[in-house]
Amino acid sequence: MSNARYDTPQEAESAFYAAFIKRDVNAMMSVWAEHENISCIHPLGPILRGPDAIRESWEALFRNAPDMQFMITERSRTQDGELAIHIVEEHIRIKNRSPSSPVQATNVYRLTENGWRMVVHHASPSPPPSKNDAPTLH
Amino acid sequence: MSNARYDTPQEAESAFYAAFIKRDVNAMMSVWAEHENISCIHPLGPILRGPDAIRESWEALFRNAPDMQFMITERSRTQDGELAIHIVEEHIRIKNRSPSSPVQATNVYRLTENGWRMVVHHASPSPPPSKNDAPTLH
Repeated sequence: MSNARYDTPQEAESAFYAAFIKRDVNAMMSVWAEHENISCIHPLGPILRGPDAIRESWEALFRNAPDMQFMITERSRTQDGELAIHIVEEHIRIKNRSPSSPVQATNVYRLTENGWRMVVHHASPSPPPSKNDAPTLH
Repeated sequence: MSNARYDTPQEAESAFYAAFIKRDVNAMMSVWAEHENISCIHPLGPILRGPDAIRESWEALFRNAPDMQFMITERSRTQDGELAIHIVEEHIRIKNRSPSSPVQATNVYRLTENGWRMVVHHASPSPPPSKNDAPTLH
């Protein structure tokens, strides 16, 4: 059980990315709803269902993760009733490496008795930069 | 403008995949809300916003698409107020080719004055089958 309470979907989203940057599994899971129907898709990963599978995936991801910097660009927000859907781009910068293409994520939040919580995180790679963007030698 | 009306998110979803199989752009666009805030992410594609960009993407996709068979596996449904979120696996079979890994899609529908319409389609590749699943020669 977690005592975290987020009064808006945006607060839950900020806590989600703060936990991601800190690689803090307990903080991460405090953002998710405590419900078997929650779903998480990491880039090119399977569909994970329920708190146990989702916690394990973040533990594995954080265990192997290098130091990262994040910049989140919001692309759209839709909200009605107890549901909010945010589409964002995650610009992840790993120390001493050149920036890669952003990850695109659809994040769904639901108003629960414990405030707004994440119920879906679907992340996937964006297209690589086109050849026109690549530096040339001439 | 489209006269199509879907009384449930499931009806809109059935019409979406029917239009996909038929490669019918007008039927496809009749499933989407007529709103600038709609978003579509094809597998490994960019985030497309608004009816014009989304229509163009389906036109291009259908122009190049071979005959396909579809099987949709529903993985989760969440609904409240005017929003419904479905996570599905799209098992796409192209004639004379062996089946590939399913596409994972998060589909969001919204109740509009014209019934339920799609507002988000986020599709991405699933992991390739593990080596243990691959046929071997011995």
